[in-house]
Amino acid sequence: MLVRLLYVSRAVNPEDTKATQSILDSAREHNLSNGITGILCYGGGIYLQAIEGGRHQVNELYGYIVRDQRHKDVALLHYEEITERRFGGWTMGQVNLAKLNTSIVLKYSEKPELDPYSVSGAVSLALLEELMLTASIIGRA
Amino acid sequence: MLVRLLYVSRAVNPEDTKATQSILDSAREHNLSNGITGILCYGGGIYLQAIEGGRHQVNELYGYIVRDQRHKDVALLHYEEITERRFGGWTMGQVNLAKLNTSIVLKYSEKPELDPYSVSGAVSLALLEELMLTASIIGRA
Amino acid sequence: MLVRLLYVSRAVNPEDTKATQSILDSAREHNLSNGITGILCYGGGIYLQAIEGGRHQVNELYGYIVRDQRHKDVALLHYEEITERRFGGWTMGQVNLAKLNTSIVLKYSEKPELDPYSVSGAVSLALLEELMLTASIIGRA
Amino acid sequence: MLVRLLYVSRAVNPEDTKATQSILDSAREHNLSNGITGILCYGGGIYLQAIEGGRHQVNELYGYIVRDQRHKDVALLHYEEITERRFGGWTMGQVNLAKLNTSIVLKYSEKPELDPYSVSGAVSLALLEELMLTASIIGRA
Amino acid sequence: MLVRLLYVSRAVNPEDTKATQSILDSAREHNLSNGITGILCYGGGIYLQAIEGGRHQVNELYGYIVRDQRHKDVALLHYEEITERRFGGWTMGQVNLAKLNTSIVLKYSEKPELDPYSVSGAVSLALLEELMLTASIIGRA
Amino acid sequence: MLVRLLYVSRAVNPEDTKATQSILDSAREHNLSNGITGILCYGGGIYLQAIEGGRHQVNELYGYIVRDQRHKDVALLHYEEITERRFGGWTMGQVNLAKLNTSIVLKYSEKPELDPYSVSGAVSLALLEELMLTASIIGRA
Amino acid sequence: MLVRLLYVSRAVNPEDTKATQSILDSAREHNLSNGITGILCYGGGIYLQAIEGGRHQVNELYGYIVRDQRHKDVALLHYEEITERRFGGWTMGQVNLAKLNTSIVLKYSEKPELDPYSVSGAVSLALLEELMLTASIIGRA
Amino acid sequence: MLVRLLYVSRAVNPEDTKATQSILDSAREHNLSNGITGILCYGGGIYLQAIEGGRHQVNELYGYIVRDQRHKDVALLHYEEITERRFGGWTMGQVNLAKLNTSIVLKYSEKPELDPYSVSGAVSLALLEELMLTASIIGRA
Amino acid sequence: MLVRLLYVSRAVNPEDTKATQSILDSAREHNLSNGITGILCYGGGIYLQAIEGGRHQVNELYGYIVRDQRHKDVALLHYEEITERRFGGWTMGQVNLAKLNTSIVLKYSEKPELDPYSVSGAVSLALLEELMLTASIIGRA
Amino acid sequence: MLVRLLYVSRAVNPEDTKATQSILDSAREHNLSNGITGILCYGGGIYLQAIEGGRHQVNELYGYIVRDQRHKDVALLHYEEITERRFGGWTMGQVNLAKLNTSIVLKYSEKPELDPYSVSGAVSLALLEELMLTASIIGRA
Ligand SMILES: Cc1cc2nc3c(=O)[nH]c(=O)nc-3n(C[C@H](O)[C@H](O)[C@H](O)COP(=O)(O)O)c2cc1C
Ligand SMILES: Cc1cc2nc3c(=O)[nH]c(=O)nc-3n(C[C@H](O)[C@H](O)[C@H](O)COP(=O)(O)O)c2cc1C
Ligand SMILES: Cc1cc2nc3c(=O)[nH]c(=O)nc-3n(C[C@H](O)[C@H](O)[C@H](O)COP(=O)(O)O)c2cc1C
Ligand SMILES: Cc1cc2nc3c(=O)[nH]c(=O)nc-3n(C[C@H](O)[C@H](O)[C@H](O)COP(=O)(O)O)c2cc1C
Ligand SMILES: Cc1cc2nc3c(=O)[nH]c(=O)nc-3n(C[C@H](O)[C@H](O)[C@H](O)COP(=O)(O)O)c2cc1C
Ligand SMILES: Cc1cc2nc3c(=O)[nH]c(=O)nc-3n(C[C@H](O)[C@H](O)[C@H](O)COP(=O)(O)O)c2cc1C
Ligand SMILES: Cc1cc2nc3c(=O)[nH]c(=O)nc-3n(C[C@H](O)[C@H](O)[C@H](O)COP(=O)(O)O)c2cc1C
Ligand SMILES: Cc1cc2nc3c(=O)[nH]c(=O)nc-3n(C[C@H](O)[C@H](O)[C@H](O)COP(=O)(O)O)c2cc1C
Ligand SMILES: Cc1cc2nc3c(=O)[nH]c(=O)nc-3n(C[C@H](O)[C@H](O)[C@H](O)COP(=O)(O)O)c2cc1C
Ligand SMILES: Cc1cc2nc3c(=O)[nH]c(=O)nc-3n(C[C@H](O)[C@H](O)[C@H](O)COP(=O)(O)O)c2cc1C
Repeated sequence: MLVRLLYVSRAVNPEDTKATQSILDSAREHNLSNGITGILCYGGGIYLQAIEGGRHQVNELYGYIVRDQRHKDVALLHYEEITERRFGGWTMGQVNLAKLNTSIVLKYSEKPELDPYSVSGAVSLALLEELMLTASIIGRA
Repeated sequence: MLVRLLYVSRAVNPEDTKATQSILDSAREHNLSNGITGILCYGGGIYLQAIEGGRHQVNELYGYIVRDQRHKDVALLHYEEITERRFGGWTMGQVNLAKLNTSIVLKYSEKPELDPYSVSGAVSLALLEELMLTASIIGRA
Repeated sequence: MLVRLLYVSRAVNPEDTKATQSILDSAREHNLSNGITGILCYGGGIYLQAIEGGRHQVNELYGYIVRDQRHKDVALLHYEEITERRFGGWTMGQVNLAKLNTSIVLKYSEKPELDPYSVSGAVSLALLEELMLTASIIGRA
Repeated sequence: MLVRLLYVSRAVNPEDTKATQSILDSAREHNLSNGITGILCYGGGIYLQAIEGGRHQVNELYGYIVRDQRHKDVALLHYEEITERRFGGWTMGQVNLAKLNTSIVLKYSEKPELDPYSVSGAVSLALLEELMLTASIIGRA
Repeated sequence: MLVRLLYVSRAVNPEDTKATQSILDSAREHNLSNGITGILCYGGGIYLQAIEGGRHQVNELYGYIVRDQRHKDVALLHYEEITERRFGGWTMGQVNLAKLNTSIVLKYSEKPELDPYSVSGAVSLALLEELMLTASIIGRA
Repeated sequence: MLVRLLYVSRAVNPEDTKATQSILDSAREHNLSNGITGILCYGGGIYLQAIEGGRHQVNELYGYIVRDQRHKDVALLHYEEITERRFGGWTMGQVNLAKLNTSIVLKYSEKPELDPYSVSGAVSLALLEELMLTASIIGRA
Repeated sequence: MLVRLLYVSRAVNPEDTKATQSILDSAREHNLSNGITGILCYGGGIYLQAIEGGRHQVNELYGYIVRDQRHKDVALLHYEEITERRFGGWTMGQVNLAKLNTSIVLKYSEKPELDPYSVSGAVSLALLEELMLTASIIGRA
Repeated sequence: MLVRLLYVSRAVNPEDTKATQSILDSAREHNLSNGITGILCYGGGIYLQAIEGGRHQVNELYGYIVRDQRHKDVALLHYEEITERRFGGWTMGQVNLAKLNTSIVLKYSEKPELDPYSVSGAVSLALLEELMLTASIIGRA
Repeated sequence: MLVRLLYVSRAVNPEDTKATQSILDSAREHNLSNGITGILCYGGGIYLQAIEGGRHQVNELYGYIVRDQRHKDVALLHYEEITERRFGGWTMGQVNLAKLNTSIVLKYSEKPELDPYSVSGAVSLALLEELMLTASIIGRA
Repeated sequence: MLVRLLYVSRAVNPEDTKATQSILDSAREHNLSNGITGILCYGGGIYLQAIEGGRHQVNELYGYIVRDQRHKDVALLHYEEITERRFGGWTMGQVNLAKLNTSIVLKYSEKPELDPYSVSGAVSLALLEELMLTASIIGRA
C-alpha cells in the first residue's frame, strides 16, 4: 500500500549547511533500496519534506526522522493512501528555499518566508505542486 | 491562515485624485512588510478593493481602512479563507475605472458605471477576475 | 441585480418589415441609457428576444413589451438572476431567421421553422448560444 | 408545460382593502377554469404572488396582471418550468402579511416588513415555502 | 441583501462584567430597529459574535464595533450572503462561556478554553450551531 | 488547528496487561492537560489508537509514542485536519478487543482477529465508528 | 434485461367501457406468462400505460399495442433499462381517471384532465408515482 | 418536443440489398418534410437506426417501422427527450457495417459482428457516437 | 484486503438436493476458519452465491468452486474491494429460491424464475439486498 | 454484455520463457475467435493480465486460466461490466516487465518490482493505463 506523508520541522542548527547535505546524502543512499521517493525543501531553518512509498517503509523512515537530533518540532501536515506517486522521479529531490523566487512562497504564505506551522497541510501540499510545475526541484545537491 | 477580503466604499472627495495617489503610496509602503497583496479599483467616486494576506494582518489593515476619513460607507462584499493568493503579484495593483473599456463594467453591472453596492459580492469578485484576464491591472500609478 | 429574460411572441403583421425595423430602432435608442442589452430574432412571424439588465429596468421594459400592439401571445420562456451578461456586446443584436442556415434552427426544433412555443425555454436558450457561436448575430439592421 | 411564476408589485391604494378582496374574488373565479393555482400575499402596500399553471395560461394571466391599474412596479422574481405544482391546493390562497408573526418575515428580510424588491427571487420563494410549512396560507378571505 | 458576519475580539478589561452587560443592553436597544439579530459569546476575555441583517446595517454596525474601545484585536472569521437567518430568534442572544459545559468547547478547540484566533472560521461557526442545538443561548442577561 | 491521528502498533510483551494499564494511566494523566482525547483498542498483541487534539499537541504526543519501548512497528493509518472531535468524550477511552463480540471485528477484517496492518486506514476508522455506535468503548479501566 | 416503457394513446371509442375491460382482461391473461407487469390509466378518452418486463417481451407487446385498432396516436413517453420493477405488484393494475380526485391530476397538468401529450414523459412518470403513493391503483376491474 | 429513438431489427431478407436501398430512399423522401433526421446502420442482417425529431413525428414513423414487413424483431434500445439533435446533419445517414473496420464494432461488442440485442442501449448509442467521430457515416447511398 | 465476489452457476444435477446440502455443510466447515462469510441461493437448477472475506481467501475458494464438478457455467457477476462486509452474519446463509415468494424474484427478473445469466451483476446484487431486508436468509439448512 | 477482468498470478517456473511464449501463442489463437482482447504483463515471476470480452467468454477463459498448471495463486484484482473495451486493439498485447523503465512500475508500487498482490486492483489498473499511454504494449512476441 502506497502512502504519501508530509511533515515540517525546525533545524537545530539552521546555519549548518553540511547537516542538510548529509541528510540528503543518507536519504539518497537509503531511499533507493527502500522504494522511497520525495522532496526536501529547506531554508530559513525550516525543513518541509514529502515522502512517498510503501506504508511500512514510510513509517519506518518517519520513525527515524522523528528521532533524528538534527531537527525538532517535527509535525505531520498531511498523510494519505495513494494510487500513484507524485514525486516518483526523485529519490529525494531538493529545493533550496533561499534560492527560490519569493513570490512562489508568498502565494501560499502570510509572509515571503515559509511557515508551514501556521497553515493547513493542504496549503503546503499546494506549494509543493507549484514547485513541481515551476521546475524548482533539483535532483542533485 | 491566508484570507481574501473584498469591500466597497465611497470617496469623501471623489474629485481629489491626490487622495487616491496617497492611498496607493501608503498601501505600497505598508503592504510589502505585512505580506499584504491586492488591487484597488477607483472611479466614479467608488473604491473597490481586494486584500489578501494573513488573517491577522488583513484584519488589522481593515481596521485602519474602516476608520480612514478619506472614504465612507465601507461595506464588506466578500471574505474567505484561501489556500493560495489570486492577486499575489501586486503589492497593491490599481485599476482606474475611468480609463477602462465600459463594456467590461457593463458585463457585471446594471449601468456602465460600477455599483458594487447593488450586487452580490460574487459579482464584484467576477469583475476582478475579468480585470486580471484582460490585463487591466497596472502595478504603478 | 442583473437578470436575463427570454420571451417569444407573434407579430401582428408578419409581413411588415418596417415594424421590426422600428422596434429595433427604438430598442437601440432606449436600451443604451437603461443598461439593457440583448438580441432579437425574427422571422416566420415570430419574435424571440433575450433581454439582460438590472431587474428593475428589464421588468419595466417587459411591461412595455407586453402592452405593445405590434405583437401578441407574448410568453416568457426563461428568467434568471445572473452574475454576468451573455449578450453584453449588443444594445440589441439582431438575427433575421429567414437568412439563417435552416440547419441551425432544425438542430433545436421539430421543423426547420422556429417554434419556441412548443419547446422548453432551455431549448430556445441553447439556440441563442449557438447563434453566438456561429456569429449569426449582427449589430446593425 | 407547467410553469411557476413569482412577482412583486406595489398597490396603488394600499389602504383599499376592498381592492384586495375584489382581486381575490376575480382570481378565484378565473383561475379555476384556467387551471391556475397559487397564493397571494399582501400587506404594507406590497403584493407578492406565486402563480402556477400551463405556460400559456400563466403568461396570459401575467399579461392581464401587468396591465392591471390597481398596482404598479410589477417585477418578476422567479420563473421556472416545473414537473409538479407546489401550490396546487389553492385556486388562490391568501396570506395577510399584517396578521403574520413578524419573525417569519424577519427570517428572510432585512427589516420585519416584507421587501421582495431588495432581495433575490430565491429568498422570496423560500419565504413562501415557510408560509406553507407554518400553515399561514388560508383558502378563503 | 441579508448577510451573516462572525468575528472574534479580546476584551480590554476581561474582568469588567458590567462592560459586557452594557454592550448587550445597547445591542438589544439598537439591533431591534436595525433588523439586526445574532448571538454574543463571552468568557475568558474573548468575545465571539455572530451578526445577521441587511448588508448595509451589518456593515454599519461592524464599523462601530471595530472602533469600540472596550475590545481589541477584532478579527473577521466568516462573512457570507444568506437566504435566511439562523439566529433570527435573538435580538442579541448571549452565551456565558464560563457557565458552559467545557466539553462543548473542547469538541471544537485544542483546549477547553475558546480560542477562535487559532482555528478556521468554519470551526467557530460549527460551535455556534452546537450551542443552538444544545439550547445554550439565552435571550436575557 | 484540530487533527485526528490513527495508528497501529505491536506490543513488545503482548501478555503484560500491566503495561496496557500503565499506558492508559499515563495517557489519562497527560491528555487532560494537553487537550488530547481519543480511544485505545488493544488485544491480540495489537494497539490501535485514535488521538485527537491540537496539531502541535498531537504531534508531540505521537513523537513520544513512536519512541515508546513498550511497542514497536508503529504505523500511521490515518491523519486529517478536523473541524470537530469525534472522540471528544474520552480522555482516552478503552476497548479490550478480547472482550469484544468477534462479529464486530470480522465485519471489517479478513479474520476475527484485528489486523489493521493489512487494510486501508479507512477500514480501521470505520471499525472505530462501529465501536462507538455499539457502545463498546469504556471510560475506565 | 429489464425495461420500463410508458406510452399514451387515444381510445377510438372513448365511450366504449367494454373495450377497456377487454383490454384489461387480455392484458392480465398474457402478461402473467410473459413476465409483464404494469398499470393502465384510462379516462377522458386517454390511455396512459406503464409496462415493465424483459426487453424482448416488452417490445413484442408494444408491437401488438401499436397495431391495436382500439386506440390511435400511440406515443412513447419514457423508456429506460431498469434494475428493479416499480409496478411489480400488478399483472396490470388499473386506474380509472374519472374516479380519481382531480387534484392529483391537476398537480401534474395544466387542466384537471390528464393530457400526457402536452408534457414531458418525466411528468407523466411522476404522476404514476403519486398514484402509487396515494393507493389509487386497483388490482381488479 | 424533440426526442431521440434508437432501435434494432432483423432484416427478413438479409441478402436483399435493394430492400435497404428502397428503405433509404423512402426515408430520405419522407423525413425531410417531417423534420426527421438520423442514421441507419445495416449489415449482417441487422438494422440499427437512430431517429430524431418531434415526439409526434418520431412516434408516427416508429409506428410505420414496427409494421414494416421488410424486417422483424424490432426492439427499442433507447428513447429520450432531447434539447438538441445529434444527427441533425443527415436526413438519414447510412453506415454499411460490412464496409466498416471491424475494430470499431469490436470495441462495443462481444464479437466483431454487431449484436445490439445482447447489450444495453447505452452501448449501441456509444457505437453511434464513435461512428460520427470516425466519419463513418455517409450522406448518400 | 476485504473483497466481495458474486457468481452464478448451473447445478449439474438440479434434482439432487443432497448435493446442495453437502455444499452447505462443507462451506460452513471451511468458511469459519478462513474468515469467509456469504449466502448461497439455489433453486431451479441455479446457484447464486455471494462470498466475502480476505482477497486471498476468497480467490482460493473461488478457485475450488470453479473446479467443482457439481456445477458448471460458473460466471462472475460482481467483484469489488470493500470496507465492510454486508453478509458478515452468515458463515454461509442459505436461500431456497423455491420457497421464496416469487414476487421478490420477479422484481429483479424478466420471469418469476431467477436468471442471473441474463442481467447485470448490479441487478443480482440488488436482489440479494432485498433478500436481507425481507429476512429471507436462514442460517441453518 | 462486455466485461473487463484483471488478475495476477505467479509463474510456476519463472525462468521458463518458453512457457510465456506458448501462453501468448495459444492466447492469440483462441482469443480472436472468442472476441477476447487484452494484455499480458510478465516479469519477475508475475503475470498480470487484463481480459475483455463477452461475460460468457471471459468467464470461460478465466475458468481455463484458473486451472492452468503453468501458474498458481491466481487472484482476481478487478472485474466490471463495461460499455467499451479499453484494450480492443490487442488480441493479447504483451509487456515484458523486465524491459520496462522501472520508474513506470515504481510510480504504482512500493518497490521497482511489480507486486499486484499487495495493492488495490485500482492501482494495477492505473498501471495498465500508464503502459498504454507510454506505448509500452507490443502486439507481437
Ligand atoms: C529533515 C530530515 C530528513 C531526512 N530524510 C531522510 C530520508 O528521506 N531518508 C533517509 O533515509 N533518511 C532521512 N533522514 C535521516 C534519518 O533521520 C536517519 O538519520 C537516517 O535514516 C539513518 O540512516 P544513517 O544512520 O545511515 O544516516 C532525514 C533526516 C532529517 C533531519
Ligand atoms: C480606499 C483605501 C484603501 C487603502 N488601502 C490601504 C492598503 O492597502 N494598505 C495600507 O497600508 N493602507 C491602506 N489605506 C490607508 C489606511 O486606511 C491607513 O491610512 C494607512 O494604513 C495608515 O498608514 P499611514 O498613516 O502610514 O498612511 C487605504 C485607505 C483607503 C481610503
Ligand atoms: C418584439 C418587440 C421587441 C421590443 N424590444 C424593445 C427593446 O429591446 N427596447 C425598447 O426600448 N423597446 C422595445 N420594444 C418596444 C417597446 O414595446 C415600446 O414600444 C418602446 O419601448 C416604447 O418606446 P417608444 O414609445 O419610444 O417607441 C419592443 C417591441 C417589440 C414588439
Ligand atoms: C395583485 C393582483 C393579483 C391578481 N391575481 C389574479 C389571479 O390570480 N387571477 C386572475 O384571474 N386575476 C388576477 N388579477 C386580476 C387581473 O389583473 C385582471 O383584473 C383579471 O384577470 C381580469 O378579469 P376580470 O375583468 O373578470 O376581473 C390580479 C390582479 C392584481 C392586481
Ligand atoms: C463585543 C461587542 C459587541 C457589540 N455588539 C453590538 C451590537 O450587537 N449592536 C449594537 O448596536 N452595538 C454593539 N456593540 C456596541 C457598539 O460597538 C457601539 O458601542 C454601539 O453601537 C454604539 O451605540 P451607543 O453609543 O448607543 O452605545 C458591541 C460592542 C462590543 C464591544
Ligand atoms: C500504545 C501506547 C499508547 C499511548 N498513549 C498515550 C496517550 O494517549 N497519552 C500519553 O500521554 N501517553 C501515551 N502513551 C505513553 C507515551 O508513549 C509516553 O510514555 C508518555 O507520554 C510519557 O509520559 P510519562 O513519562 O509520564 O509516562 C502511550 C504509549 C503507548 C505504548
Ligand atoms: C391501451 C391498450 C393496452 C393494452 N395492454 C395490453 C397488455 O398489457 N398486455 C397484453 O397482452 N395486451 C394488451 N393490449 C392488447 C394488445 O394490443 C393485443 O390486443 C393483445 O395482446 C393480443 O392478444 P389477444 O389476441 O389474446 O387479445 C392492450 C391494448 C390496448 C389498446
Ligand atoms: C429499417 C427500416 C428503416 C426505415 N426508416 C425509415 C425512415 O427513416 N423514414 C421513413 O419515412 N421510412 C422509413 N422506413 C420505411 C417505413 O417503415 C415505411 O415503409 C415508410 O415510411 C412508408 O412510406 P412509403 O409507403 O412511402 O414507403 C424504414 C423501414 C425500415 C424497415
Ligand atoms: C455452488 C457451490 C458453492 C460452494 N460454496 C463453498 C463455500 O462457501 N465454502 C467452501 O469451503 N466450499 C464451497 N463449495 C465447495 C468447494 O467447491 C469445494 O468442494 C470445497 O471447498 C472443498 O472442500 P472439501 O473437499 O472439504 O469439501 C461450494 C461448491 C459449490 C458447487
Ligand atoms: C498467465 C496465463 C494467461 C493466459 N491467457 C490466455 C488467453 O488470453 N487466452 C487463451 O485462450 N488462453 C490463455 N491461457 C491459456 C489457458 O489457460 C489454456 O491453456 C488455453 O486456453 C487452453 O487452450 P490450448 O489447450 O489450446 O492451449 C493463459 C494461461 C496463462 C497461464
